[in-house]
Amino acid sequence: MRASVLVGKGVIEMQERPVPAPGDGEVLVRVASVGVCGSDVHYYKEGRIGDYVVEQPLVLGHEVSGLVVDVGRGVDESRVGERVAIDPQRPCRHCRACKAGRSNLCPFMEFYATPPHDGTFCDYVTAPSDQAYLVPDSLSDDSAALLEPLSVGLWAAHKASIGPGDRVLVAGAGPIGAMVAQAVRARGASDVVVTDFVDSRRERITSFGATRALHPVADAAEIAALQADAFVDCSGATPAVLSGLTATRSGGTVVLVGLGAEQMPLPVQEIASRELNITGVFRYIDTWPRGIALTTAGTVHLDDMVTARYPLEQVEDALNADSDPLSMKAVVVLTPTTEGASA
Amino acid sequence: MRASVLVGKGVIEMQERPVPAPGDGEVLVRVASVGVCGSDVHYYKEGRIGDYVVEQPLVLGHEVSGLVVDVGRGVDESRVGERVAIDPQRPCRHCRACKAGRSNLCPFMEFYATPPHDGTFCDYVTAPSDQAYLVPDSLSDDSAALLEPLSVGLWAAHKASIGPGDRVLVAGAGPIGAMVAQAVRARGASDVVVTDFVDSRRERITSFGATRALHPVADAAEIAALQADAFVDCSGATPAVLSGLTATRSGGTVVLVGLGAEQMPLPVQEIASRELNITGVFRYIDTWPRGIALTTAGTVHLDDMVTARYPLEQVEDALNADSDPLSMKAVVVLTPTTEGASA
Amino acid sequence: MRASVLVGKGVIEMQERPVPAPGDGEVLVRVASVGVCGSDVHYYKEGRIGDYVVEQPLVLGHEVSGLVVDVGRGVDESRVGERVAIDPQRPCRHCRACKAGRSNLCPFMEFYATPPHDGTFCDYVTAPSDQAYLVPDSLSDDSAALLEPLSVGLWAAHKASIGPGDRVLVAGAGPIGAMVAQAVRARGASDVVVTDFVDSRRERITSFGATRALHPVADAAEIAALQADAFVDCSGATPAVLSGLTATRSGGTVVLVGLGAEQMPLPVQEIASRELNITGVFRYIDTWPRGIALTTAGTVHLDDMVTARYPLEQVEDALNADSDPLSMKAVVVLTPTTEGASA
Amino acid sequence: MRASVLVGKGVIEMQERPVPAPGDGEVLVRVASVGVCGSDVHYYKEGRIGDYVVEQPLVLGHEVSGLVVDVGRGVDESRVGERVAIDPQRPCRHCRACKAGRSNLCPFMEFYATPPHDGTFCDYVTAPSDQAYLVPDSLSDDSAALLEPLSVGLWAAHKASIGPGDRVLVAGAGPIGAMVAQAVRARGASDVVVTDFVDSRRERITSFGATRALHPVADAAEIAALQADAFVDCSGATPAVLSGLTATRSGGTVVLVGLGAEQMPLPVQEIASRELNITGVFRYIDTWPRGIALTTAGTVHLDDMVTARYPLEQVEDALNADSDPLSMKAVVVLTPTTEGASA
Repeated sequence: MRASVLVGKGVIEMQERPVPAPGDGEVLVRVASVGVCGSDVHYYKEGRIGDYVVEQPLVLGHEVSGLVVDVGRGVDESRVGERVAIDPQRPCRHCRACKAGRSNLCPFMEFYATPPHDGTFCDYVTAPSDQAYLVPDSLSDDSAALLEPLSVGLWAAHKASIGPGDRVLVAGAGPIGAMVAQAVRARGASDVVVTDFVDSRRERITSFGATRALHPVADAAEIAALQADAFVDCSGATPAVLSGLTATRSGGTVVLVGLGAEQMPLPVQEIASRELNITGVFRYIDTWPRGIALTTAGTVHLDDMVTARYPLEQVEDALNADSDPLSMKAVVVLTPTTEGASA
Repeated sequence: MRASVLVGKGVIEMQERPVPAPGDGEVLVRVASVGVCGSDVHYYKEGRIGDYVVEQPLVLGHEVSGLVVDVGRGVDESRVGERVAIDPQRPCRHCRACKAGRSNLCPFMEFYATPPHDGTFCDYVTAPSDQAYLVPDSLSDDSAALLEPLSVGLWAAHKASIGPGDRVLVAGAGPIGAMVAQAVRARGASDVVVTDFVDSRRERITSFGATRALHPVADAAEIAALQADAFVDCSGATPAVLSGLTATRSGGTVVLVGLGAEQMPLPVQEIASRELNITGVFRYIDTWPRGIALTTAGTVHLDDMVTARYPLEQVEDALNADSDPLSMKAVVVLTPTTEGASA
Repeated sequence: MRASVLVGKGVIEMQERPVPAPGDGEVLVRVASVGVCGSDVHYYKEGRIGDYVVEQPLVLGHEVSGLVVDVGRGVDESRVGERVAIDPQRPCRHCRACKAGRSNLCPFMEFYATPPHDGTFCDYVTAPSDQAYLVPDSLSDDSAALLEPLSVGLWAAHKASIGPGDRVLVAGAGPIGAMVAQAVRARGASDVVVTDFVDSRRERITSFGATRALHPVADAAEIAALQADAFVDCSGATPAVLSGLTATRSGGTVVLVGLGAEQMPLPVQEIASRELNITGVFRYIDTWPRGIALTTAGTVHLDDMVTARYPLEQVEDALNADSDPLSMKAVVVLTPTTEGASA
Repeated sequence: MRASVLVGKGVIEMQERPVPAPGDGEVLVRVASVGVCGSDVHYYKEGRIGDYVVEQPLVLGHEVSGLVVDVGRGVDESRVGERVAIDPQRPCRHCRACKAGRSNLCPFMEFYATPPHDGTFCDYVTAPSDQAYLVPDSLSDDSAALLEPLSVGLWAAHKASIGPGDRVLVAGAGPIGAMVAQAVRARGASDVVVTDFVDSRRERITSFGATRALHPVADAAEIAALQADAFVDCSGATPAVLSGLTATRSGGTVVLVGLGAEQMPLPVQEIASRELNITGVFRYIDTWPRGIALTTAGTVHLDDMVTARYPLEQVEDALNADSDPLSMKAVVVLTPTTEGASA
């Protein structure tokens, strides 16, 4: 099969690799669509994200949909032919975090495209059967792939404890900001204020969940006065985090999604005296069933987020697409699930 | 001023009464719209609800909007002229329930139209200033009044812990069922199944939050297989409660809103072995700001629920309106807030 | 190896069986102590518990401690020689309940001594490696076995949302009542009122967590006035449940642990208007680490609960021990972990 | 009456003032014991705490017990003669924070000894009747006063979501650290590790809830490996906060109690990727009933914390007492409640 491989910092090359065999409890999935994530871009351009360093050739990509074409031992044959979206997490299921309901924090987690585990920019991947979720025909291959970044938004909205009628501030009008905005709207937030420096991104975000879009500097006073119930940072920028903290009402929640500086000087006395709750998101738990239901019900819109589609041979272009601020989401397209399903 | 008074079981009479003076911390409100609630009908027809017995003439009505026309000591004069919706609760604010954040369960609560406290079927009422919420001009007088039954729906959805993508079963397609259906949708429920025996009510409910409407008997098998995340009973019917329990997934929540029999034979072994959570709603906490935000944002629709409007002289007709199964919500109309505001 | 087998209703017989081989990810445990549970007694005397029917010979027993004597593939050899207490649950780890943090409600759960799965009244059992918890030397074999019923108490206290300074009512001063009383004390409950008809059980329970012991009838007025923050029923008796509901403050929680009648006539209007929360416990999640910590810290006392110890040949006597109301906990003793560990 | 007044930075003077009259809904309390708090010392030595600046003469002291000697309008006369502990908070009870159950964050809060409101270093004070809690005779005047700092500990333990069997790290073995340690033990924490630089404070803290006491530098490796379920900082020291974050398990909670630098450089990427929850405490909600219950039950010990007692004339000595690291809690003693109760 074909695989698009990161062989060195900034160097992608197409390789032929054997189709993997599904192990016990696994399905083999012929890949349909793969969304490009900021983390893919990071690995491609920097060769690392924090402690995760690319030390050997790595297949990137982890936002993935496709067609089940084979099953391993213990999996019902009837799954062959299913259109699926894959939750890319492989928690150990046996540690205390897993057993206590915090599997996203499993210290033994394996994850597509996180060194040393290969990702999904290739024709076939295996996945644990229960992590490959059946999607209805009404959901496109692209939408099915984008359930992964939607999951980040849903988990952020969950961590932010959004309730109906809430006001939420989101910093950053990129793809994650758009997912968060849609997710908080899905939980009933009625005022979703998104900030971004780029005019075109502010304009566009009102189609993706935002009720208002503000400029971080020009509208600073309005932002500071928001008394938001929650603030979700999708910018990674220290000034955005600091102004977001100020804009959050006492007792409100701040969720850090964007990755920027390792450290930020946070106003700890204000956090204490206003009982702000600061936390972050690391992946997600139990979000695929919710994402499928919300997308099918039309509460969340994913197809509209795709701004460019590339064949597997152009993964590098896809990885560079976000240099254009008007790019929302690039998708790498392999074999549509609607094509004849023989492996 | 005019007041419509329940002077005996089934007997309403118009009386002249003095306009009340706003006390310390109170506002005087000229009444605009008053929704008719099932509890008003109960007092009118039965003379009691459980331990609450009508023992002296009683003004009914508690779903109310209006215009602030005067203020008592300690209230800013600037409130005069505000269009408001009133949270009818007067908790004591000093008992442990109030101080611990459970004010709806305050044992010293006073409430409009709950003996011995008069309600709002009259030209003027007083209310604690903080319980009279400013509503935006985009909200009609009727919608402002219906924030009260919406609050019941919001509180039921809160008690049911509804999350995005959830499946919810609601028994009863009447006005409360419709409020609950809209409220759970506002929290992101993507499949809202409402049951009712009356064909026309099932048809109509899909305009008020339901994604599907089923017949309790004809569709019994489909209901039993729902595995709903939550079940909200708005019927008060024992068979509905029992089948709703069965239709709820293990670990799910059952919220009792409808009042029917005092006792029901509940399957306690099933409740225990499937860890179902059974609870109910008694009024609400912190729902007006949320209801105003949701209605203004267009997430919830209240005006469409009004099926008939009556002048104060026809309160009795309004109280009898629900004998027609097609009646959703009757509203008694007094002085629209848009009319000249002199008291 | 020896196994004590239920071969028909009320008939136990000793059999020779092969020592099981530990499968992938499993440990083989030489059994030390096995507590006798009410469910064992039920299967022995009635041949069934609800839908679970004994249809073939069954080894009873599921409260178990022992010594690791062998490991299956994928388990570190170093575990051999560990003294362990076993969480008897084998959830599937792949269904939505398991992945969403509700593994105790896994519909595919396997459990010792629940038909058709054999239990632990035998010399050797296998267990998933992660469900066999290392216990410190300070914990006796009996205490290690009794971490299972303690887990029921801990989970009940968790479901009851007990906080420091709470008043808790517990119905039933038997072994489960004692576990619940100790567990709620461990969470800071400062007034733990236990009810029981038997004088000697009331007297004894104050050594196991109760601060007060009351007679259900003679002290009915005092019980009714408790305004308890939570009520945990360990009696299964309808009158106890009904009076416990009344004794619980508005907004409080009722947890059903004891199994009695299939149905009970519950006051649904009171549940709704006082927003009581009714739920039950079905096993537990993440309780062994907590139980080991609490027992080791001396917060909870388990050895004192053992009122009789029997060799494997006398399982039948152990199963009949609870006919004496003074029996608290019978334990079947096999090979103490301190004896030479060769399998 | 006598009042000890802060008339300038570092200058306390005794004054004669009129006994205040209890207002509507208030009680007049003859002061018995007043604990000295770090905030009193701050105002005395610095003249300010953050935005709160002492701009006119101020009576310090807010940890207070005493005897009810008179009541205002609307308060039952029978309260005269009650021994009480006072929750010093006067929330407005009408704002959204108050009504939504977050009264500690009320923006209109009045509080003893917080400019411009006088405190309790004087013979008589008034308090809202419901904030003056009856204490049982078994509780000393000093213990009743120390329910206030205990409330800080209880609220911190609540915010830290401590559960039974948890491991908790506490930085700082002073009076607040001791209150936190006792409070987390009351919630069932079984391993409570307290750090402090001072040998004598480490030794002493094991009598006040700590199971282990470690040196921040000498034991740094042991601290770093704790994997604590929660970390509560009572030191205000940046290095303590940073090492505490590292010592907290993924998904755990960090509560900031101690006030130190305005800002700290926090590892935001670690907070996000390990989903740490960072928050703080600002006073408390619903803690007096819990504190009274826990102290009466013997779960928490307050009298032992008093290291020195001073008459009102020596408030200045009391304020300087904490310069001795062996000082735990200084108490200013006025009229014991056991003396004849005529006002």
